Amino acid sequence: METSDMNITSVTISNLKEKIKEGEISLTELVQAFLNRSERLNKEINAFITILRDEALESAHRAEEELRAGQYRGPLHGIPFALKDLFFTRGVRTTCGSKILADFIPDKNAAVAQKLLEAGAINLGKLNMHEFAFGPTSLNPHYGDVRNPWNQDHMSGGSSGGSAASVAASMALFTLGTDTGGSVRIPAACCGVVGLKPTYGRISVYGVYPLCWSMDHVGIFAKRVRDAAYVLKAIAGNDPCDITSASEEVPDYATSLTGEIRGVRIGLLLNYYFEILDREVRAKVDEAVKTLVELGAQVEEISIPHLEEGAAAALITLSAESASSLEEFYHTRPELGADIRGRLDLGVLFPATAYIKAQRVRRYLQESFRETFKKVDVLVTPTLPITAPRRDATSVSIDGVSMPVVPALTRLTRLYNLIGLPVITLPCGFSQEGLPIGLQIAGKPFAEATILQVAHAYEANTDWHEKEPPLPRVE
Amino acid sequence: METSDMNITSVTISNLKEKIKEGEISLTELVQAFLNRSERLNKEINAFITILRDEALESAHRAEEELRAGQYRGPLHGIPFALKDLFFTRGVRTTCGSKILADFIPDKNAAVAQKLLEAGAINLGKLNMHEFAFGPTSLNPHYGDVRNPWNQDHMSGGSSGGSAASVAASMALFTLGTDTGGSVRIPAACCGVVGLKPTYGRISVYGVYPLCWSMDHVGIFAKRVRDAAYVLKAIAGNDPCDITSASEEVPDYATSLTGEIRGVRIGLLLNYYFEILDREVRAKVDEAVKTLVELGAQVEEISIPHLEEGAAAALITLSAESASSLEEFYHTRPELGADIRGRLDLGVLFPATAYIKAQRVRRYLQESFRETFKKVDVLVTPTLPITAPRRDATSVSIDGVSMPVVPALTRLTRLYNLIGLPVITLPCGFSQEGLPIGLQIAGKPFAEATILQVAHAYEANTDWHEKEPPLPRVE
Repeated sequence: METSDMNITSVTISNLKEKIKEGEISLTELVQAFLNRSERLNKEINAFITILRDEALESAHRAEEELRAGQYRGPLHGIPFALKDLFFTRGVRTTCGSKILADFIPDKNAAVAQKLLEAGAINLGKLNMHEFAFGPTSLNPHYGDVRNPWNQDHMSGGSSGGSAASVAASMALFTLGTDTGGSVRIPAACCGVVGLKPTYGRISVYGVYPLCWSMDHVGIFAKRVRDAAYVLKAIAGNDPCDITSASEEVPDYATSLTGEIRGVRIGLLLNYYFEILDREVRAKVDEAVKTLVELGAQVEEISIPHLEEGAAAALITLSAESASSLEEFYHTRPELGADIRGRLDLGVLFPATAYIKAQRVRRYLQESFRETFKKVDVLVTPTLPITAPRRDATSVSIDGVSMPVVPALTRLTRLYNLIGLPVITLPCGFSQEGLPIGLQIAGKPFAEATILQVAHAYEANTDWHEKEPPLPRVE
Repeated sequence: METSDMNITSVTISNLKEKIKEGEISLTELVQAFLNRSERLNKEINAFITILRDEALESAHRAEEELRAGQYRGPLHGIPFALKDLFFTRGVRTTCGSKILADFIPDKNAAVAQKLLEAGAINLGKLNMHEFAFGPTSLNPHYGDVRNPWNQDHMSGGSSGGSAASVAASMALFTLGTDTGGSVRIPAACCGVVGLKPTYGRISVYGVYPLCWSMDHVGIFAKRVRDAAYVLKAIAGNDPCDITSASEEVPDYATSLTGEIRGVRIGLLLNYYFEILDREVRAKVDEAVKTLVELGAQVEEISIPHLEEGAAAALITLSAESASSLEEFYHTRPELGADIRGRLDLGVLFPATAYIKAQRVRRYLQESFRETFKKVDVLVTPTLPITAPRRDATSVSIDGVSMPVVPALTRLTRLYNLIGLPVITLPCGFSQEGLPIGLQIAGKPFAEATILQVAHAYEANTDWHEKEPPLPRVE
């Protein structure tokens, strides 16, 4: 097959990898096509801060030579990807979306960046984000807003806005982001792609610019659940350089995706998660649950007490830990964005006693969720109570309840960071305005295979993932 | 054997248990003898806040009847013990050494109290302590100071002062205390008895009045290492009511005490621990290390960086968590002791960012100690840099360095609470003044058997434990 015959918007890791292995595709042409598309569409979407054209083409050339020499590195060989601009990349500036680090060039790769390069994947560049990953909108005063591929007047969501928008716009086949309060799942839901935040400790955070040490997670964006599974397998696992890293074995996630979910016990987390919801979101999630039941899953309604206190504990933990990480910039660098500064104004003021109470709530809820997962295999909720807000919005109305944009975006994602559970979001429909709606599926610690299985079964029996955002055609 | 023939100051669990099992001792007479001694000596020592004469005699009677009926519950059957007055005891007031809780009568037993009763041990009463366990002196403005059995002008150490002094004065065969910054090891060293603080999570803290959730440990006082091993076996293990409780199996600690330590690798933690030391303490610890070498142990000098920062992290964690626990009393109860109030003045002021940095230091040091324990089996240091200070002292001079009493007492114990390692202290000599000196032996997580083995080997080859404090004879 000629790469020029290929519709770049419809390729996935799954449908490319055999062709790459068999040498049926020119990796140089593939990467060239993605670079052309990224450069052209970046004018609309502003997903990339840095595009690494020369480096990517050189890597594609090397990857091709390896194939010719009979060396196939696996399913990510030759696959174009990109990284949120807080993953350290050796010799390539890593801005964290901040003017403060505009000239910061790391001398090492993040552990995950290194693993991806060793798996043969091709780094196209570094992605725009909310400054220091400390906000859910990706409205960035230094590098410009990331715009939603489905409607550029709307937010991409954040903090990994560029990571989600670039996948949605077919500018990369997969990307990495980080998720501290929903920063993978929020933009994935806003942009209509798969977003996976694994268990705390599952993926090394070595070489990832820290925001909030007890809630930071590396996460994955892809167009398909199976693609996310390939990437997870490549980057998960113990890392002696990261003391929070877990030593649990890494299963072969993609192989176990059979689409079979008969008898899987699904809990609908009714309290808190379903209380304040946009009507269109509620309707689509209800439909999705029906689909899962048709596929043979058992659905049970679940209620876990004190989730409101958990939301408060998550806010305190996130605010105080982030203040601890960014305290020096807060005190010494006036160029820090105003919204970050506002959040730090709050974070530095919390007394230790409040933080400690938050950790007690956290332990209590970890135990509650542990008990819940004796009764169900996964918990299903909406990812967001809304669709992507307009970029000029400061508040949203959710079925009659008015709420500022930031808490509206993070309301249903942040608790899972406090508890550290694995969670995936995938598209389950669109609003009448044409904006994507996300379904959130959470599992018990290290049960990534289970949530991938449920998500894959849903995806395989629906076609939301086939819809493409209305973007200019790139030749 | 008639109990009246027995020298009450020389009995131990180890040398009583067979006689009890065989019915050779009247448990009623045994308990009566301990009650008489406790009531008489409490005038000097002030170790008990509450003596449970009637209840203890009734329990002794029942324990005796059980034996007659052929029911032997194990090595603690009929053994008189006592509890620091912060362990919940059903129907018996539990003051925490504070006027605020002078009338608090719990409706349940602490998990460990329940386990001891089920093991057949006889509770003689509740022991005096530092108010709310928040200080190392056991100078108590509400219930009077606990006095050191070796010299009543001197402190017993704290916070479990009554627990240590009562064992030293042969008022109970074993006692329980708690250790948050050294509160078992400090009074054990001051009073010349064995003090054991196991690994964080090894013993349930359910029903123990909380001070500092991430550093609180239940600990054991006894006259002999083997006695402590019997008690540990009886009270260790998982407790579903305590979410910090560990599920590691509980070995038969006493059975494995062979006294054999040939080839055991001992690390001398030279930096920090040996830097500021009273000369007599240093000399005795040096002698103890020589003894261990003569017994076949290998000694290596060890240095672990950033222990000073660890001491600061321990102070911040202890202060802030304690402030979180006691905040309500701090704001509403003027009868709180002045020294506690002073400590809380500090604790409530720490910002969350300082606490979070302390937790980072803690993780770093946990990792450093983990690495160290690849090279050595135990770490040996002094327990205190000094002997028990006079009760009227506010500062002490340590080989020319002047230091306030509180940091001098806690200096060498508190780090092990931050890291959560198992530690034991046992007597390794006396000062010229006649005050005991303690040897501190720490192990890796859940290696209680190892530290008990080393301590037992030392004890079996020395005779410090045979010396008795100069107290009035009780008929």
